[in-house]
Amino acid sequence: MRLSKLFTKTLREAPKDEITANAQLLAKGGFVFKVMSGVYAFLPLGLRVLNKIRNIIREEMDALGGQEILMPSLHPAEYWKATGGWDNIDVLFKIKSRTEKDYALGQSHEEIVTPIVKEMVKSYKDLPLAIYQVNWKFRDELRPKSGILRGREFEMKDMYSFHESQEDFENFYEKVKKAYINAYKKLGLVAKVAEASGGNFSEKISYEFMVLTDAGEDDILYCSACDFCVNLNIAKQKENDVCPRCGKVKLEKGKASEVGNVFDLGKKYPKDFDFQYAAQDGGKEYPVMGCYGWGTTRTMGVVVEKFHDEKGIVWPDIIAPFQVHLIHLGDSKEVKKAAEDLYKELQKNKIEVLFDDREDKGAGEKFIDADLIGIPLRAVVSEKTVKEKKIEIKKRNEEKIKLVDKKELLKILC
Amino acid sequence: MRLSKLFTKTLREAPKDEITANAQLLAKGGFVFKVMSGVYAFLPLGLRVLNKIRNIIREEMDALGGQEILMPSLHPAEYWKATGGWDNIDVLFKIKSRTEKDYALGQSHEEIVTPIVKEMVKSYKDLPLAIYQVNWKFRDELRPKSGILRGREFEMKDMYSFHESQEDFENFYEKVKKAYINAYKKLGLVAKVAEASGGNFSEKISYEFMVLTDAGEDDILYCSACDFCVNLNIAKQKENDVCPRCGKVKLEKGKASEVGNVFDLGKKYPKDFDFQYAAQDGGKEYPVMGCYGWGTTRTMGVVVEKFHDEKGIVWPDIIAPFQVHLIHLGDSKEVKKAAEDLYKELQKNKIEVLFDDREDKGAGEKFIDADLIGIPLRAVVSEKTVKEKKIEIKKRNEEKIKLVDKKELLKILC
Repeated sequence: MRLSKLFTKTLREAPKDEITANAQLLAKGGFVFKVMSGVYAFLPLGLRVLNKIRNIIREEMDALGGQEILMPSLHPAEYWKATGGWDNIDVLFKIKSRTEKDYALGQSHEEIVTPIVKEMVKSYKDLPLAIYQVNWKFRDELRPKSGILRGREFEMKDMYSFHESQEDFENFYEKVKKAYINAYKKLGLVAKVAEASGGNFSEKISYEFMVLTDAGEDDILYCSACDFCVNLNIAKQKENDVCPRCGKVKLEKGKASEVGNVFDLGKKYPKDFDFQYAAQDGGKEYPVMGCYGWGTTRTMGVVVEKFHDEKGIVWPDIIAPFQVHLIHLGDSKEVKKAAEDLYKELQKNKIEVLFDDREDKGAGEKFIDADLIGIPLRAVVSEKTVKEKKIEIKKRNEEKIKLVDKKELLKILC
Repeated sequence: MRLSKLFTKTLREAPKDEITANAQLLAKGGFVFKVMSGVYAFLPLGLRVLNKIRNIIREEMDALGGQEILMPSLHPAEYWKATGGWDNIDVLFKIKSRTEKDYALGQSHEEIVTPIVKEMVKSYKDLPLAIYQVNWKFRDELRPKSGILRGREFEMKDMYSFHESQEDFENFYEKVKKAYINAYKKLGLVAKVAEASGGNFSEKISYEFMVLTDAGEDDILYCSACDFCVNLNIAKQKENDVCPRCGKVKLEKGKASEVGNVFDLGKKYPKDFDFQYAAQDGGKEYPVMGCYGWGTTRTMGVVVEKFHDEKGIVWPDIIAPFQVHLIHLGDSKEVKKAAEDLYKELQKNKIEVLFDDREDKGAGEKFIDADLIGIPLRAVVSEKTVKEKKIEIKKRNEEKIKLVDKKELLKILC
């Protein structure tokens, strides 16, 4: 993509109403546009990042045998009344239609997925089963905050699984946990699995996947020597207690952001919707249900919180909007032609390039924008590099500048 | 994908509350699930079709220089009040938050895209500009009908363009028209461009892209000899009048479904949001704005209306959920192994296969399901074909059965 054509502009100052790094940098780089508190539009660069995050999590869910569907956001009130959510979930948006019908806006999708699965699953032979979607959620938050970390409208991957037994659910949960940890690792994030309370309708423990970050809204106690981690609001321990799991070091307290969660839903929703299947022993049984959330937009925010410096974002390769940020400096015919040729050659090699071909910007501005946008590799074509038949490259997270020829550049990028 | 793992089931009877072919067949085939009147979930097969439709239209919009973004569905009331839509659009869903704030649900996105573009476009040098998204719309329809043809929640590609002059808008409109016609052609649809009224806020003419189908909700007058077409509700002609454009034949009346539309919005929205740019002559100007809709979910419905027979859907190759429906008949080890080997080989060759590996279903049921689901090519592995080292293939839209070897099959599919 040519920067001269990209309709978004970078900002030199962060919007005054944004405090957190993710909100400031994503706005300054032109990744998102704030429509109102807690509600953002994703602009071309932001949508590219979001699509990559979506596909990383899709890959992991598909590998688990998850089947992707897409559920609506407009829900009949009856379903939310059947589960108690209508009266008990304070963030549920309610709508009245012209014909006085009541609807809810999807703040989660247990109320929709359970009737769908009830229609399709009749026998134990159809179990276990895992279904997921990547879709927007709406929550009437009193205080949306921290940019795209906590919004009124945000996107999640939500998977729902159905099992014959608690044991089968727990086995599957272990697999999902591994897939989650794997996906976070791909993003360069280290997530700790924290015990937390079970949410609106469950006395069971749930699990939260937590990434330590100052912008996080949760307080956790964690052990730096083992994987012990617990949400402070249900912890039996306190800061500086010796870790109850490994006994080696003292527990530390930290701010963390929840990037995923798992709920053991038991048989609540199948019971609410009278969803039974024909069991192996000839009787009728309610399935055991699990729910697995992963915030896609929030993950984007957390990545920015973790990977930025005073100049801008430092995207991990795997979700960077482009692989290389190509810049031409100077207006001579030779430089322009060399840059254009390189742009085309990179595209021909299926490399994603953002090409700063703007003629009215100098080196200083171009470099500032490159650092702000945060693409992992910067490649510069100038009088000097053309003369030497080289390209000047610099990694976003390194200071070292290197001259390479076209072949070497392609080798680095392919 | 293995049919034995797919959680959806085909139905032998259509749901009693569905009248139109698209709603009946998409439900019977397990493509969609009706959550309530006018609101559907897209199940794995349906989502695959929808993704292909989305990508066809994305390709065309990208080729026009359209830049993809993603706008929210939850809109601040102020924006809708600024344009008059809050009081004048009867299908607008309104929501009150816990804190007594008013929101609208996106029934279109002029109210969001205009403030975004206002922020980014400062000069004539930034024009022309075309931005699009593929996103869900919410409309408080009194009578949703015809399955996914007219819903309360449906998906559209909506593009918005901004120009220095009316002439530039009209030139761009001609390009979009060609891209639309091109995309319909890829889907096997012939769309007529009908003049229609200008919508809520415009006295200008708009253009509707119409596909003739009995399930359509619009009446059009059209000429079979040229491209003249007009929505009956604004027509100056009547049925059997001689075509005013070519004069060759009499106008015919028909039912049609609107699969796309274009609105010449003039300067209304830029004026409502006080969006001016620095013009070439040094003054300030409001841009001329156009809007281009394309119903992705509706297109899926129209395709089913056009391409089905008494046995089921007959998907065009380009949006079929899979390229080949592989069936194994009989339980002998040799047949199973041959079918498994073929399944793996097709996948290795990047061919999308739905593999009916179900062991508890006979040939009759498997063939009925294959016809219902409507994948363009059926491939059967049986005792007989294994003996002859062949595969039996049949196109969904032909009666002829043919024996081919693996090499020929790959040649047909690659």
